[in-house]
Amino acid sequence: MSNKVAVYRKEHFNSAHRLFNADWDDEMNKKVFGKCSNPHYHGHNYELIVKLVGEINPKTGFVMDMKLLSDVIQEQIIERFDHKNLNEDCNEFAQLNPTAENIVVTIYNILSQHIDPVLKMTVRLYETERNFVQYPA
Amino acid sequence: MSNKVAVYRKEHFNSAHRLFNADWDDEMNKKVFGKCSNPHYHGHNYELIVKLVGEINPKTGFVMDMKLLSDVIQEQIIERFDHKNLNEDCNEFAQLNPTAENIVVTIYNILSQHIDPVLKMTVRLYETERNFVQYPA
Amino acid sequence: MSNKVAVYRKEHFNSAHRLFNADWDDEMNKKVFGKCSNPHYHGHNYELIVKLVGEINPKTGFVMDMKLLSDVIQEQIIERFDHKNLNEDCNEFAQLNPTAENIVVTIYNILSQHIDPVLKMTVRLYETERNFVQYPA
Amino acid sequence: MSNKVAVYRKEHFNSAHRLFNADWDDEMNKKVFGKCSNPHYHGHNYELIVKLVGEINPKTGFVMDMKLLSDVIQEQIIERFDHKNLNEDCNEFAQLNPTAENIVVTIYNILSQHIDPVLKMTVRLYETERNFVQYPA
Amino acid sequence: MSNKVAVYRKEHFNSAHRLFNADWDDEMNKKVFGKCSNPHYHGHNYELIVKLVGEINPKTGFVMDMKLLSDVIQEQIIERFDHKNLNEDCNEFAQLNPTAENIVVTIYNILSQHIDPVLKMTVRLYETERNFVQYPA
Amino acid sequence: MSNKVAVYRKEHFNSAHRLFNADWDDEMNKKVFGKCSNPHYHGHNYELIVKLVGEINPKTGFVMDMKLLSDVIQEQIIERFDHKNLNEDCNEFAQLNPTAENIVVTIYNILSQHIDPVLKMTVRLYETERNFVQYPA
Repeated sequence: MSNKVAVYRKEHFNSAHRLFNADWDDEMNKKVFGKCSNPHYHGHNYELIVKLVGEINPKTGFVMDMKLLSDVIQEQIIERFDHKNLNEDCNEFAQLNPTAENIVVTIYNILSQHIDPVLKMTVRLYETERNFVQYPA
Repeated sequence: MSNKVAVYRKEHFNSAHRLFNADWDDEMNKKVFGKCSNPHYHGHNYELIVKLVGEINPKTGFVMDMKLLSDVIQEQIIERFDHKNLNEDCNEFAQLNPTAENIVVTIYNILSQHIDPVLKMTVRLYETERNFVQYPA
Repeated sequence: MSNKVAVYRKEHFNSAHRLFNADWDDEMNKKVFGKCSNPHYHGHNYELIVKLVGEINPKTGFVMDMKLLSDVIQEQIIERFDHKNLNEDCNEFAQLNPTAENIVVTIYNILSQHIDPVLKMTVRLYETERNFVQYPA
Repeated sequence: MSNKVAVYRKEHFNSAHRLFNADWDDEMNKKVFGKCSNPHYHGHNYELIVKLVGEINPKTGFVMDMKLLSDVIQEQIIERFDHKNLNEDCNEFAQLNPTAENIVVTIYNILSQHIDPVLKMTVRLYETERNFVQYPA
Repeated sequence: MSNKVAVYRKEHFNSAHRLFNADWDDEMNKKVFGKCSNPHYHGHNYELIVKLVGEINPKTGFVMDMKLLSDVIQEQIIERFDHKNLNEDCNEFAQLNPTAENIVVTIYNILSQHIDPVLKMTVRLYETERNFVQYPA
Repeated sequence: MSNKVAVYRKEHFNSAHRLFNADWDDEMNKKVFGKCSNPHYHGHNYELIVKLVGEINPKTGFVMDMKLLSDVIQEQIIERFDHKNLNEDCNEFAQLNPTAENIVVTIYNILSQHIDPVLKMTVRLYETERNFVQYPA
């Protein structure tokens, strides 16, 4: 059995978005995405959980200092997406439909540039208490 | 002691909004409301709890049938505000800043036209898990 | 301003019940109570919160020792209703429809015989996360 | 690393049940299952989370439309088990003890006939906040 | 009916404490407070909810800016008690047994010096999910 | 696909601790662990979830009787750590820094001596709602 430990840090942000495929007309967008495609946007309190798997540093007893992980998430994700309109304000979603699936992959890709690659990362995103996603699966 | 019982029903809706006072310029709005005034909106998963106080009907054992209360909230509030932009899509906030305080009073006023006035109503609204409001206080 | 403090203790129990008025025929029960009147019962994880209001005892710093309050709730309520069929197993509901409203008043009346009357009691009962009641209101 | 994403949908239902092995006499059932074997049943608010793993459809940004997944769960599981007595009303448990373990496998087997087999499914079932199960493990 | 609205802000802190009456010997403390009197302390994640009741400012739509309320709670309460030993590190409890009741009154008294007295304040403190207190009641 | 089912049991305990490496001086401890190294300790409400994976016993319908699992956790973990100071009262942390990572591995190692090795165990520990760990990862 591996002696690796997983550590998790939970943060949140509030954003507006709409589901929209620019290759489709409004009718097709409405048919596929329903009220989620409302042109004036709606929004969510997103809950984000970042999981890192690694070995315990025997000096600190930490896999990673959760305070430092929290700082990375704040700087890279919360400041980028919190109190923003994902479609209008965020370049990441200029060409990419901001579904929960696409948001979680985007967050993973951003964070992976700032987290030690020795630590295996998984990102979970709650769009609501009833709808959530994870990447990698 | 009164023999009245309170019943509570919880529902939710997801909306976009921005905090904005049309009498102020952008700089003043930004100073007062900070990132909550972002022009392209942000959003929330709003949790709504409606409380009704009354006497138990001895035939049904109900103060009010929670199924009927749920239907009223769905028809009057959820269909009106869910997956909407409160500032852009909802007449109620055309002239009224959609703070949690103003939203909860608006919901109270709408519902009070559809609930038996014998039942004393209180409305609580969670904008996030950490910020919430109630009316009447 | 009163210098009284409220203390709350949360407990839970799991019970089966059906909503049923013995004065009505099956059709009328079905019409009023819908699937809640299913003859073979359904069930809930009930969450119970007992609130007591009083002055702080200067020697203990307690309004009431929460361990003792928990013991009273366990002995008087949990042992009586947990893993029971409220309609079939519990005399309290032999003639009384076990709606959340009637259950919370019943619990209040039982507990009031075992709690110092100097302490003002309020009982809240969650039938589900979305439907709950309180007595007195 | 796989580029697959997991999506989760949470639903709930309320049921009565008792734990009971028809091959045993009442004494043996009582010895093994304790108060969970009460002949008149008890009940729970079951919380159900269905997880599906697959690739993101580049046109929709979805692994699967959560609205459609919710509809499948409603039609196949909630309508079948909600406000029912699992032992008395549900053929699935006529010969099968409705433990959380057996319920979750049953739900998995029903849903697997209605979900695209390309999507790898996992089902989690909360009997209470403190007792829950998952299949496959 | 009053046109006042209640606003609530939730914060948290983590502290160690023990229940102890310096007028009693160890045996009496142990008898009254049980394991809560363990000489080497135990601890809690305290959840704090501050409620303020007032009229909506028509310019801002706020009863009080929740960001400012959060700042007051952070400066006056969280910095004072978070990651502290209430008995050893905090003058407030040098002579006062840090029961939940005494902590909530202490927090109320501190905050009342920093909150506009026009706003009626109530403080709720969760010691655990199952034990919580409120002042004034 | 394996026909194994996972069962989970959640328990909790309240403890005091401080983060501290005895090989470092106070300044170094303060630099690395910040306020978590406060000499007089702070504390948490720890939530513990034990997961066991195995096959369903066809006679009982159980992977393991959750009542028995709860008893093992109570006897081996809760009685050992609840209302204790992990650094001062618990031999397990006399030489081991009681970070969440080290606590979860310690709990795993204790429980593994009391759980049937046929059942694959995973332990998750919530130090706060926002910081949690799991072992094995």
